[in-house]
Amino acid sequence: MKLLKTSISALLAAVTFSSGALIISHRAFADSTTTKIAPSKTLIVNRAISESEVLAAQKAWGDALVAISTTYETKGLDAAKVLAGKVIDAAYGYQFGAVLFKPTLTVAPQTFRTTRAGALAYFVGGDPAFPSDAGFALKGWRKVEIKNAGIFISGNTATTMGNVLITDKDGKVTIVDKTWQFLKDDNGNLRIILHHSSLPFSVK
Amino acid sequence: MKLLKTSISALLAAVTFSSGALIISHRAFADSTTTKIAPSKTLIVNRAISESEVLAAQKAWGDALVAISTTYETKGLDAAKVLAGKVIDAAYGYQFGAVLFKPTLTVAPQTFRTTRAGALAYFVGGDPAFPSDAGFALKGWRKVEIKNAGIFISGNTATTMGNVLITDKDGKVTIVDKTWQFLKDDNGNLRIILHHSSLPFSVK
Amino acid sequence: MKLLKTSISALLAAVTFSSGALIISHRAFADSTTTKIAPSKTLIVNRAISESEVLAAQKAWGDALVAISTTYETKGLDAAKVLAGKVIDAAYGYQFGAVLFKPTLTVAPQTFRTTRAGALAYFVGGDPAFPSDAGFALKGWRKVEIKNAGIFISGNTATTMGNVLITDKDGKVTIVDKTWQFLKDDNGNLRIILHHSSLPFSVK
Amino acid sequence: MKLLKTSISALLAAVTFSSGALIISHRAFADSTTTKIAPSKTLIVNRAISESEVLAAQKAWGDALVAISTTYETKGLDAAKVLAGKVIDAAYGYQFGAVLFKPTLTVAPQTFRTTRAGALAYFVGGDPAFPSDAGFALKGWRKVEIKNAGIFISGNTATTMGNVLITDKDGKVTIVDKTWQFLKDDNGNLRIILHHSSLPFSVK
Repeated sequence: MKLLKTSISALLAAVTFSSGALIISHRAFADSTTTKIAPSKTLIVNRAISESEVLAAQKAWGDALVAISTTYETKGLDAAKVLAGKVIDAAYGYQFGAVLFKPTLTVAPQTFRTTRAGALAYFVGGDPAFPSDAGFALKGWRKVEIKNAGIFISGNTATTMGNVLITDKDGKVTIVDKTWQFLKDDNGNLRIILHHSSLPFSVK
Repeated sequence: MKLLKTSISALLAAVTFSSGALIISHRAFADSTTTKIAPSKTLIVNRAISESEVLAAQKAWGDALVAISTTYETKGLDAAKVLAGKVIDAAYGYQFGAVLFKPTLTVAPQTFRTTRAGALAYFVGGDPAFPSDAGFALKGWRKVEIKNAGIFISGNTATTMGNVLITDKDGKVTIVDKTWQFLKDDNGNLRIILHHSSLPFSVK
Repeated sequence: MKLLKTSISALLAAVTFSSGALIISHRAFADSTTTKIAPSKTLIVNRAISESEVLAAQKAWGDALVAISTTYETKGLDAAKVLAGKVIDAAYGYQFGAVLFKPTLTVAPQTFRTTRAGALAYFVGGDPAFPSDAGFALKGWRKVEIKNAGIFISGNTATTMGNVLITDKDGKVTIVDKTWQFLKDDNGNLRIILHHSSLPFSVK
Repeated sequence: MKLLKTSISALLAAVTFSSGALIISHRAFADSTTTKIAPSKTLIVNRAISESEVLAAQKAWGDALVAISTTYETKGLDAAKVLAGKVIDAAYGYQFGAVLFKPTLTVAPQTFRTTRAGALAYFVGGDPAFPSDAGFALKGWRKVEIKNAGIFISGNTATTMGNVLITDKDGKVTIVDKTWQFLKDDNGNLRIILHHSSLPFSVK
């Protein structure tokens, strides 16, 4: 049993973190092998979501929001729309059939944006089908800070809840209560399948 | 191959729904078996979450809210607190280590109630550690209606988003935007591991 | 609450089965809606694996084995190889990084075929890197029957265990003990990520 | 954004491994907080399965097999039976409704042991309902080595495949091809829900 303990220690030492990708690796056994057993390596596929992947996906969302804002200012609305579309396709899971998306500033009867068109309209506006949307991502955002109250990883999904502080070009900070659920796709990328954002409740 | 097709049809016809329990069943093969193969039944454990289980769990939450209100009115605060504790223990997943809970009316720095004590304080109040809590479940609720905008079932979790309409004893309706994530526990019961509730955004 | 009960019954009645595809559907609410709440439909994404999907995926494996055999006999080895490659790419999960595959007849040190090349060699032979492989799928198979002893569905995977009876063109039946684990991919297709097949133990 | 990057690095540095238990931890934010946002810690629940947990669960199985053998020799059959029952209850998932268990030496029509009674009979024998069972765990085992060919972690389950080398008191080594699937239960323990063991194929 002594050999096995050694090899467990060696395996632990070799564990590496991967961000936004499947962890696939080979492990070498230390002892000699014979033709009676399997070759001396273990092929490992790890599709579980790690905490570092969750934090990286949150950061990517914030970076993308700032990027859409600055693209709008430097390259115009069309470029911002193209970028927003790419961000939605890369970071959200609309290809699964729907995303449960309640943006911060939407109003009934279009509160929930379960379709890609509804998400795009919210971020960049200009869609006559969503007349209330002014384009949230166009509001001069410069910085996004995420303060997680909790993270719950279960199965192939991870859910986060906390405050997000968004600072605009004038230094004004908007605080929202935000929940995200991420699903790891077949390529190892985390995709948002739930996004509920709301302004903090205030006693009137 | 014809036999197999028939048996698939038969299996479909036999599919049953189960609420709050694992689906475990035996299936009989139509053809004779010999001692060379397995006995003629299939033992089935199905731990996936079904849509009907999700709807039942949502309804149970609404029923519990009304029950706490009426218990408070008919039996007093202590009885309401006991019931609220039972509801939290049965319907939420605090035993997993945390629940991501953003109730409708909480304010910073106690917006997020990741602990059982924080949830109980929100529902029935009276906890000096949570001085802003007046007891949401004590407000005379009589009816809860759930209007799902979307349901996303993935692996052993299911997430819902939509409006919940809560009617009090005077007929006044409060509408909230609500997200729940349920996890199926080892006993086959759905437990809330995420609950984000917020008042609809309104343009001031 | 009466309305809700009715709508749950209606939902149950509307549940449909889908084979090899995500279940995405719209549900209409019976009651009128106002501009204060969400539109009157629920967008549903169900990525759980159903028992009928599992049975269909097993049957597809058997059909593919027979198809490779008959393609070999009618169109030759090259056509059989092309088909086997397509079957592996469609039905197995090698794109996830590895498949845990222990075919019935492999021997050490090449017992386990965690790579696509190893699987292809097993089914159609002719790969000098796998000199023991004669091509299991070329052996004149005509019929595949699956007798599941058990099915265990958990999260986004399903595992089956039981006997598989494979009949060749001379009517000879080969019985194997077989385990499969399926993973539902992003497109809603079940993919084999585990396949352990062995001849029944016999007392010598 | 600089602050956030720093805090991600800090989090990575703080990641710890936990064997057989949920990873629940608090993380402190470096910067000051105000009453406008959440308290400065993140509550984390991580129910994903780690590779180290898988290796520990495999090792525990081997240790248990040896323990049953030595208990039989030193304390007799009754004590071995009691221990075997405890091992099954702690390490297998029969409480979920079934385990897909194909032991190495079983024969039809009792090849598959989907019930707890069938597993116990295989390990310690003496059950008239399973007349072929001589008690596999009573055969003087002294050492268990595990050579994984592959590990596939997905969601809340992990599957392993490889050789297991079991050495008895006379130094004789039995090699089996073995597949295990583990499910993480509500208490954070890995449980075997699939176990397919077979003797290597040999050309006669």
